[in-house]
Amino acid sequence: MERNARAAKDGHPPPPYLLFLGDVPLQPMAKTAAGLLQWRPELCVGKLTLPGCAVEMDIPEMTPKEAVGAGAKTLVIAVVNPGGTLPDAWIPALVEALEAGLNIASGAHVSLSVFPDLKDTAARLDRTLYDVRLPKMTFDVGDGVKRAGKRILTVGTDCVVGKKYTALALEKALRERGVDADFRATGQTGILIARRGVAIDAVTSDFISGAAEWLSPANAPDHWDVIEGQGSLYHPSFAGVTLGLIHGSQPDALIVCHEPIRRQLLSLPYPIPPLKEFMKTNLDAARLTNPNAIIAGMSLNTSKMSAQSAEEAVVAMEQETGLPCCDPIRHGAGKIADHLISVLA
Amino acid sequence: MERNARAAKDGHPPPPYLLFLGDVPLQPMAKTAAGLLQWRPELCVGKLTLPGCAVEMDIPEMTPKEAVGAGAKTLVIAVVNPGGTLPDAWIPALVEALEAGLNIASGAHVSLSVFPDLKDTAARLDRTLYDVRLPKMTFDVGDGVKRAGKRILTVGTDCVVGKKYTALALEKALRERGVDADFRATGQTGILIARRGVAIDAVTSDFISGAAEWLSPANAPDHWDVIEGQGSLYHPSFAGVTLGLIHGSQPDALIVCHEPIRRQLLSLPYPIPPLKEFMKTNLDAARLTNPNAIIAGMSLNTSKMSAQSAEEAVVAMEQETGLPCCDPIRHGAGKIADHLISVLA
Repeated sequence: MERNARAAKDGHPPPPYLLFLGDVPLQPMAKTAAGLLQWRPELCVGKLTLPGCAVEMDIPEMTPKEAVGAGAKTLVIAVVNPGGTLPDAWIPALVEALEAGLNIASGAHVSLSVFPDLKDTAARLDRTLYDVRLPKMTFDVGDGVKRAGKRILTVGTDCVVGKKYTALALEKALRERGVDADFRATGQTGILIARRGVAIDAVTSDFISGAAEWLSPANAPDHWDVIEGQGSLYHPSFAGVTLGLIHGSQPDALIVCHEPIRRQLLSLPYPIPPLKEFMKTNLDAARLTNPNAIIAGMSLNTSKMSAQSAEEAVVAMEQETGLPCCDPIRHGAGKIADHLISVLA
Repeated sequence: MERNARAAKDGHPPPPYLLFLGDVPLQPMAKTAAGLLQWRPELCVGKLTLPGCAVEMDIPEMTPKEAVGAGAKTLVIAVVNPGGTLPDAWIPALVEALEAGLNIASGAHVSLSVFPDLKDTAARLDRTLYDVRLPKMTFDVGDGVKRAGKRILTVGTDCVVGKKYTALALEKALRERGVDADFRATGQTGILIARRGVAIDAVTSDFISGAAEWLSPANAPDHWDVIEGQGSLYHPSFAGVTLGLIHGSQPDALIVCHEPIRRQLLSLPYPIPPLKEFMKTNLDAARLTNPNAIIAGMSLNTSKMSAQSAEEAVVAMEQETGLPCCDPIRHGAGKIADHLISVLA
C-alpha cells in the first residue's frame, strides 16, 4: 500500500478554480481552460482575462475578489504560456489573486516560485503555488510486474488528436454503465481535471515506466483505469515517453486516437503513419508487458470536419478495422465502452 | 554552432584519475573502473581501496597523496554504490582525497554535494565535485531534422551485453582504418572514458531524443559518430530511453549486441527477445528518423563462454544473419568496421 500512501500525500490544488486566460490571442492556447470546462464544469467558478485576450469561454468574468466570494480556492493558469514562461504583464493580476485569497496553479515548465513577486506574496499570505507539471516525488524504475485490475490506454497517431478527451469520455461512459472506472492523468490539463496524476514527460527518463506503474497501481479485479496517452510511437520528439507509458501501463486494451484529415505531424514535417502499421507497432509494444493486450476501439477527432464528413469517416473506420469508432465529443465513447465490457469484463 | 558551444562549456573531471574502489565485495561492482582501465589506461594512475574490497584491478594501490605525486587530478568513484548512495565508511577517505589535492567525480544518482563533509571540504579547498550522471544543461525537444555525418548506434537485447564496449572497440577499429570516428557516451562510465557525453537516462523524458540529437551534432560528411546504446527496446524498465536514443541518434547503421547464453533479462523475469524479431523492431524504429538505416553487424558478449564455444557462436551468428560478427573483447571490431566502410563510406 506504499503506492497509495504516496499518492495520497501528493498535494493538488484545491478547487473550485478561477480560470486565468491572461491576454492570449488565440483560442487553441486555452486548451487547459477548455478541457476543465468540458469535463469538470463543476470545478470552475469563473474566468479572469486581461486586455487583449481573444479567447471565448462560456463562463462569467470575475475579479479575484468576486471569485473568492463565489467560493474559488485556486486561480489556474489555464492557457499555454507563450515561451513556456509567464509574461511580466500577468504578474500584477496574479499577485492580486494571491492577495484576494487564492492559491495559484500552473502547468508550465517553469516553476511559479521563480517569480519573486509571486513567491514573496504567497509566503507572506500563506498561499500555495502549485506547479502541476513538476514531479512532486521520486519514482522507482519500472519492474514490469503484472498488476491486478483492468487498464485501458489511449494511443495517438500524433499529439493533439484527442487522447485525453477519449480517455475522459470513456471514463464517463464506463461509469454510466456501472463500471468502477478512473481516468488517470499524464499531463498538466488532465491532472487539473482529475486532481491527481503525473506529468509523465516531466519525469526523469530512467523512471518513465516506473511512473506509469505508480499511476495505475494494483486495484480490484473489476476496477478499470482509463489512462491518458501521450505523444506517439511515430513522433521523433516524444516516442520514448509514449513507449515507457505503454510498458508501464500494461494495457489490456488500447484505444487508437486519430485525426482523419491530418497528413503530417502538427509540429514536425513527418507523415502520419499508415494506420495498420501504427496499430501493429502499438500492439506489439503493449504485448511486451501484457501479452493479452488488444486494440478495442478507434477514436476520431473530427473537430475540423462537417457533421456529414465526420459520420462518413466513422463508418469508413469501422469498416476498415472492424472496431467500434466514435468522436468522443460528437458521440461520447459509449460504443467503445460497450465493446470493452463485452470483451474484457 | 550553438550546439558545439554548449558542449565545449560542459565541465568534465580532469584526468588522470585515481580509481576509488571502496570496500565493494564483488568484481562486477567495479564496472566503471574496469571500463576505464580497458579503454583508457593512460587516464588512470592508480587505485584506492578500503578494507574489505575484493575487487581485482591490475593497477598500483596508492594513497591520495601518492596519486597526486603521480599527477592525478581527480578521484573517480569507480564502483557501483550499493543503494545508489555513498556509504558513511567511504567519506573519510574521500575527504582525505580532497585534502590531498584531488577533485572527486561520481556517477551515482545522488549528488556528491549532499554529503556535508564533501561539500564543505571542497568549498574550503576549492576542489570540484563532479556529478557525471546529472545533466549539466537543459536540452531542447528533439526536432527530427537530419544531420550531416555518419552515425552508428549499438543496440542490445538486454542491459550489460556490451553496447559500450562494442562502440569503443568500433571507434578504435575505425580510427585504425583512417576513419575520423568519435565514441559518443550515453552513460556515466562512457562519459568518464570519453570525457564528454550525456547520461541519457538522467535527462527529463520530454527531451530524450533532443539530448541524443545534441550528443551527435551535425558533422563533416565523412565523420562517424559511434554512439553508446542504452537499455533495450524489449526491457520493460528502460525501453523508452532506448527508443528516444534511437530516434535522436538517426543511425545509419545499428550494431546488435547480444549474449548468446542469456535466456532472460538480468534484472527482470522477462525473456530475451527472439533475435530476428528484435532486429526488425529496432530497424523499424531507426527508420522513422533515418529511412536508410541498416543493421551492419552483430556483437557477442562471450565472456562467460569457453574460447571454443565463443568461436562457434560467432560462426553460427554469421551464418544466421549474414552479417559480420565478433566479440569486441576477444576479437576487436575490425570485421564490423571493414563491413561498415564497405557499405557506408
